[in-house]
This record gives sequence, structure tokens and C-alpha cells, in this order.
Amino acid sequence: MRTVLFTLFSVCLVFTTSSSAFEYFQPLPEKPIIPNDNPQTKEKIALGKQLYFDPRLSLNADVSCNSCHNLAAGGDDDGAVAHMVNRKIKRSAPSLWNVGYLSTYFWDARAASLEEQAIEHLFDPNIMAMGSPTILENRIKSIPGYVDSFKQVFNDKKVSTENIAKALSAFERTLTVPNSRYDQFIKGNKSALNEKEQRGMDLFKNKGCLGCHFGVNFAGPAPGPALKMGDAFYELMPTIRGSLYEDKYDFLDDQGVFHHTLNDEHRLFWRVPPLRNITDSAPYFHNGSVKDLHEAVRVMDRVQFNYGVNEKEVDDIVSFLKTLTGIYPPITLPRLPETEGSTLTH
Amino acid sequence: MRTVLFTLFSVCLVFTTSSSAFEYFQPLPEKPIIPNDNPQTKEKIALGKQLYFDPRLSLNADVSCNSCHNLAAGGDDDGAVAHMVNRKIKRSAPSLWNVGYLSTYFWDARAASLEEQAIEHLFDPNIMAMGSPTILENRIKSIPGYVDSFKQVFNDKKVSTENIAKALSAFERTLTVPNSRYDQFIKGNKSALNEKEQRGMDLFKNKGCLGCHFGVNFAGPAPGPALKMGDAFYELMPTIRGSLYEDKYDFLDDQGVFHHTLNDEHRLFWRVPPLRNITDSAPYFHNGSVKDLHEAVRVMDRVQFNYGVNEKEVDDIVSFLKTLTGIYPPITLPRLPETEGSTLTH
Repeated sequence: MRTVLFTLFSVCLVFTTSSSAFEYFQPLPEKPIIPNDNPQTKEKIALGKQLYFDPRLSLNADVSCNSCHNLAAGGDDDGAVAHMVNRKIKRSAPSLWNVGYLSTYFWDARAASLEEQAIEHLFDPNIMAMGSPTILENRIKSIPGYVDSFKQVFNDKKVSTENIAKALSAFERTLTVPNSRYDQFIKGNKSALNEKEQRGMDLFKNKGCLGCHFGVNFAGPAPGPALKMGDAFYELMPTIRGSLYEDKYDFLDDQGVFHHTLNDEHRLFWRVPPLRNITDSAPYFHNGSVKDLHEAVRVMDRVQFNYGVNEKEVDDIVSFLKTLTGIYPPITLPRLPETEGSTLTH
Repeated sequence: MRTVLFTLFSVCLVFTTSSSAFEYFQPLPEKPIIPNDNPQTKEKIALGKQLYFDPRLSLNADVSCNSCHNLAAGGDDDGAVAHMVNRKIKRSAPSLWNVGYLSTYFWDARAASLEEQAIEHLFDPNIMAMGSPTILENRIKSIPGYVDSFKQVFNDKKVSTENIAKALSAFERTLTVPNSRYDQFIKGNKSALNEKEQRGMDLFKNKGCLGCHFGVNFAGPAPGPALKMGDAFYELMPTIRGSLYEDKYDFLDDQGVFHHTLNDEHRLFWRVPPLRNITDSAPYFHNGSVKDLHEAVRVMDRVQFNYGVNEKEVDDIVSFLKTLTGIYPPITLPRLPETEGSTLTH
């Protein structure tokens, strides 16, 4: 696990002063950057898809990754906070769509890669609760179909926690949702957005939203020349204290990155959440306290800038945000390897 | 709801005396019989698939039909008893594969059609827990994509509980798993089963199993000329009392059909469970008390016949049972209609 966090900008607001903000509008690349130590192969992706949909990856075989990060929907669940199986999780399940274009994982950016976040999910007692790598590996080793697949997919042929995380990550890196109307517009089709949506896009830039929500995933810099994998890009939220929204939506209750670093300077810092397909991942904010996208825009204006955007401007910005929803790829349900004439967990 | 049960045979054991038992081996028809009042349409099946995978059909939006009847696996869950979300269900989740070929539903045959069982699942406080038809219908009506689909699919254009059940059932009737090696054999390809498997098939007939487990789904007569939809075909289990297995596997704890009819003559009667794809739906029996298929065969011999089959015979029978697993059709995950910028349940 990474222990040192690199904060690229103390408050990402600095970007709003840039004179060339428009370049921060970028289309979604066809594929995310693939780490050298986990190359994509067809077989690895297929194995990762099985694991992603397999409830046996949780101790009681009651939830799979897909239970909270539902690929039939926005890649998240319908709840304010991840709410499966009486788990006590105080943060909202983020969407897994386009997840390969991020540089850090979890709301507080505490994992530097998809592989790291997978491992943390598997052993978190409130999530998959697998107890230990030995418990997890013995579980998977008792399913003959998986043992065969790991042999074929990995050079070391091992059912190891590291390989489980690699396979899951390989699948998750395929979850690209391309070709939103925004992408068409950015690539040159100027009729892809109507007048209202373009007005919203201008407001998104001029009212400061773009200061943090820029780049291919509207989550700050994507991994690449500008940012190493694992480098975090934070925003302080709320930046402007004392608004009524603080109490109404409990924004001071969870101190964000601080809980992870225990560094007082990180109180109320959060990874900048991506905005693609935002229409499909209500409710909003780390605690899922706001259901409506208009209200989310009002809140962000008040607690980050206090410009006082009016309702027409809010509506224009929401119109623009709606154009960020792309074309979801079809997902064929995997066939999970069975334990013939036996069962693992009950 | 149907209130009168028709018991076709008081103990299905009578069939073992038939001199033409072989005709009870039947291949799986291409499609199940479709009820006149719920014709299949492409659009209805697509809607039913969305509903099947949608956790918002449960009160807390935490389980979908697929949570316990997982189509990525054997159409059931991995547990002895359905174990999602702390529900208290004392019976094992049966497979939904080939479910259209049954004449009754639930272990105790208390529903006469797929439509009836869907409604019962939706309102059972231990399953989907929707409280009332009004709660369910208001939930679905608040999802614009569903409202549009119901308008297109049903003549009355209504989001009604009845139509929800019809759409779910239409999808479930497509869950056919054809072309097992057994089916190939029955259709004339005599090399589809090896010698051991054919020996198992003969034992299956001659040791009495076929007495109850005959027909297209090995669950007794399928709906058709011989049996109206809703007519139940029961077996008494255990038939022979006093074996050690009774206690070991708790076979007297749940009195089966009696709980539903309150008729003392129905104590320990159960719908004959189908055997297709049995390798993929461990553990076995209504309470999921037996994990291993060999043990399940031993138990059935002891508590139903007491012939004392030997271990070689058990192994032959299991070999035959393994040939009943067919080719699962690919299932593409549906896209669930979203509630843009809002959420329903949390």
C-alpha cells in the first residue's frame, strides 16, 4: 500500500484563474492507460468479469462487486451510502464506469491503483469481509474452474490475492462509456450540443466548476505525462464555510482525506469526483446527501465559490452535465464456475 | 390466488410400478407452453429482464430477483437457504433455469403459475417486501423509462402489479437450457452418453427415481394434455420413516405442503423438484441440508425406497445426473432505466 500521498494542488480552485481553461475540456480516450505490470489479455478480462459478478468473493457469498457497483445501471447503487447486506458504510458507492481513467481510488484517494482498491474492498470487514488473503485464496482455490483460469492467465499460475486484484482491474479497465454528445462536440461536431447546453458549458467553465472538474473524466488530471498513477488531485469541500448547506447536508461530519492521512491539513479534502454519466449516479456527494442534480449545482456554487448563480444558470449547467452521459457498452453476464455437487459457504 | 390444490397422485411412487417407465424420459422442448393471457413479445421479455435484474423491485432496493436466482450461475444462490440481506427464509432458492416447464411454483407448489409466484415474492416481507401493490406500483411509476415501456408492452398501458408479474414471467419463460448430453441421447445420439452414464440412467429408472423425477424437467408431468397449469405433483419425503438421515438433515422440521394447506394429509409432501442442471444448484433438498450429490442420492434411496444401493450404483446415478446439464444461453445484462438526477429509495 502507498503510504505517502502527493497533493498536486493544495486547493484545485487555482485552476479557475487559468486563461486557457478551454483546453481542460477533453474527449474520452478510447482506452485508459494500462499499467506495465498488468497487461490486458482477453482471458484475464474474462476471468476478471467472472470475479466481478461472483458473490463468493464476499465472506458470506452475499454480495459481488456488482451488488454495489451495478453495471446494469450507473455503475453504482441507488442509495445515499452503499447499503447492501447491512454493511455500515458511510460513503456513497461511486460509479465503476470509466474508472480506468482515474489516478486514485476511493473518495479519499487512499488507493493508488485499481489493484490496490480491489484488495482493500476484499478485506474491508464492511465490504467483502474476506478476513485474510488465505481465506480468500482458499475460497477461490476450492472452485476448480477458477484454478484452471488462473493457470492459463498468469505466468506464475497462482490463485493469489494479487492476481485476483489484477484480473478484477483488467475487467474494470474495459468499462469505458464513450461517445457522449459532449465527446462528439469536443471532437468537432458543433451541432451535438444545443444552444442551452453550450451556454451551460460556458457557465461550467466561467463559474469555476472546470477548475477542479476538468480532463477526460472531469475529475482533474488523468494519469499520463501530467500525473503519475497514484498522484492525488484534491478539492477542499466546503471551501467557503458557514453556509446553511453545511448542516443541511452534513458536509462537516466526514473529514475526508484526513481520516486516512491523519494530517490536519487534509481535513475536508476529497478526491475530485468524475462527472461523466452523472445523470445515472444520483445521489450526489461523498455521503449521497443530495438527490437532485440541480441542487448539487446550487450547493457547489454556494460552498465553493458563492457566486450566487441564478436558477436559469443552474438549469443551463445541468443541461450541459446531461450531455456527459455516453453509450454504455453491452455486458454479457459471465458464467460463474460451479462447484459441482457441493457448495462453499453455507 | 388459487385456493384448491389438486393432488394428482397421493404418492408419486406409484409410477415406479409402471411397465413403460422408459417413456418418462423426455427431451426438453424448445419452448415451454405459453399461457393464453400472457403471450410472449420481444418488448415484454426485454421489460421483464430489466425488472428481473432491478433491485428497486425490493423495498430497500437491496435485492433483485437475480440476487437469489443468479443467472450467472445455476439460477440459484450458493446457500442452503436463500440468504440475501438477512432475510429469514428457511427454504433453499430453487433454480430459475427451465422454470417455464413446471406446472407449479415454490417447494410446496403453492403458486399455480409463474405470474402467481412473482406476485408472492414481491410482497413476501422476507423476500422483496414491497408492502402493498400501491407501494410497488408507485415505485415503478416513478421511473419514467418503465412507464414508457409498460405503455408500449401492455394493451391497458398500465403499470400494474399484474403486468409486472406478467413481464417477469415472460422473461423467465425464456430461460431454457437446452441440449444436454442427456437430450442428445434421448433424441437418438446413442454415443452422447458413455457406458457408465447409461448404467446410471438404467439405475435411475430401475431404482425408483424415475417414479417421481420423470418428464421434460424430471419434476413429474409438465403442463400439457396430461396436466393443467397449477396442478401439483407431489412426493412424500421421507416416505420411509425412522432413518438416521431424518435427524441428520432435519427432514421432519419443515412439513412442506401442510404449512400451506393446513391439511394433515399433506404433511411432508413436497413438489417434485426438477433435476436438470442439478450439478449447478447445490446444496440439495428444500432446506439445502445436503451439499454433495452422491449423498443426496444415498439419502433419497434410504428415505424413499430403502433398496440399499451400493456406492458404485450411487456413483453411476450421479454420472447420469451430470449429463442433465445443458448449454446455458448467453444473457446480456439489461440497462436499467434511471431516475435522472434523483433516487428512489435512500
